[in-house]
Amino acid sequence: MYKLVLIRHGESLWNKENRFTGWVDVDLTEKGATEARHAGQLLREAGFVFDLAYTSVLKRAIRTLWHVQDEMDLMWIPVVHSWRLNERHYGALTGLDKAETAAKYGDQQVLVWRRSYDTPPPALTAGDSRDACSDPRYARLKREEIPLSECLKDTVARVMPVWNESIAPAIRSGKRIVIAAHGNSLRALIKYLDDVSDQDIVNLNIPNGIPIVYELDENLKPLRHEYLGNQAEIASAMASVASQGKAR
Amino acid sequence: MYKLVLIRHGESLWNKENRFTGWVDVDLTEKGATEARHAGQLLREAGFVFDLAYTSVLKRAIRTLWHVQDEMDLMWIPVVHSWRLNERHYGALTGLDKAETAAKYGDQQVLVWRRSYDTPPPALTAGDSRDACSDPRYARLKREEIPLSECLKDTVARVMPVWNESIAPAIRSGKRIVIAAHGNSLRALIKYLDDVSDQDIVNLNIPNGIPIVYELDENLKPLRHEYLGNQAEIASAMASVASQGKAR
Repeated sequence: MYKLVLIRHGESLWNKENRFTGWVDVDLTEKGATEARHAGQLLREAGFVFDLAYTSVLKRAIRTLWHVQDEMDLMWIPVVHSWRLNERHYGALTGLDKAETAAKYGDQQVLVWRRSYDTPPPALTAGDSRDACSDPRYARLKREEIPLSECLKDTVARVMPVWNESIAPAIRSGKRIVIAAHGNSLRALIKYLDDVSDQDIVNLNIPNGIPIVYELDENLKPLRHEYLGNQAEIASAMASVASQGKAR
Repeated sequence: MYKLVLIRHGESLWNKENRFTGWVDVDLTEKGATEARHAGQLLREAGFVFDLAYTSVLKRAIRTLWHVQDEMDLMWIPVVHSWRLNERHYGALTGLDKAETAAKYGDQQVLVWRRSYDTPPPALTAGDSRDACSDPRYARLKREEIPLSECLKDTVARVMPVWNESIAPAIRSGKRIVIAAHGNSLRALIKYLDDVSDQDIVNLNIPNGIPIVYELDENLKPLRHEYLGNQAEIASAMASVASQGKAR
């Protein structure tokens, strides 16, 4: 039996400002840093040790991981940074205020963009400064690998190769792994692990900075999972994520 | 032509307390963290960008690198953690106060232990709690690879494989590299790069938290090197390192 720990990054500046973030590289807030340190403390107190960590190429996830490593005295373990674990790309909504977007287009349209499995938001157009194609961290990717917008289905499709080709083999080899990533890249993994339907996965709200512990059988099928920490606080955090897309 | 940047970690708690540190995993002081951030700022302002970083498995070097990455907005680059870049192992002197040791054994004996090229300090004996053999970060090493004491010659011998097998090929492939490491693992690299004699290398005092920029030709032979920053402050920092082993 294997254990795998997933952590969504702590609160970011744009979580706090209620803006669509996607691939924009915004940092944690002080609250987010505190959440990340708390996640590390919970894991340490529960006796977890990791041999290997995965994260995205976005600093809100990387810094979350750094805080966890620091609290667990595991700064020395290898870390894989994969663009495939990045947040869902929010297309032309990137940078917009969620509540203003809802007031303009209606709660229902924003809910479709946020929570439809296979309807992406409007795509970035040629020359948009938000296009990641000139960012050096994506320099080795093909143009068609760099999204201009993604629905969750698209995110699942680009997350799965790093699971199949790197994370799953490492777990099978006995490595104890933590993945510090984003709401939608973690949804993608959880959809696959728990075989969640296209309809149900969009209603899963992953709280910031809470370690999710999966126990996996020898075929990497989940036996159970739990959120580490105070269960009432976790329920409240999940409800808060769910309500972010509504007009104020 | 290639560029390579070396950085000795910022001031550590035991630098400040004037104790022999070696493989003990002490953290940076606040001053050390400030030095590390300053190094990152200098590199950013000078227009440096890195594709790959190397560091040891000791947190004073890793945290120095993290500060540099943070200041340069390069948290996403791959990082290789190698035990071969660790500080020289100080054997039975590990943890002892440098001035007290000098008062007890004499400045001359301590200078031999600190600065002889091929005379190691007394070795740890079996069962010493300072032996790294039960530390999980060295779990995959053979017993004979984990030192019980090292002279600089020993450190050179275990640093060179990571240079020859990993760092040098990466530089040749065009990767722009920073190495955040320790006084003696950097001495080992500099001895090799600049072909410094056994006698002269022990008198090279590398200041904490100052980026050293090497320009290398196509055979990785140095054309020149410089310390980035205020040259008077750097000279003062080098003199301060040189005087650490004297009785107070």
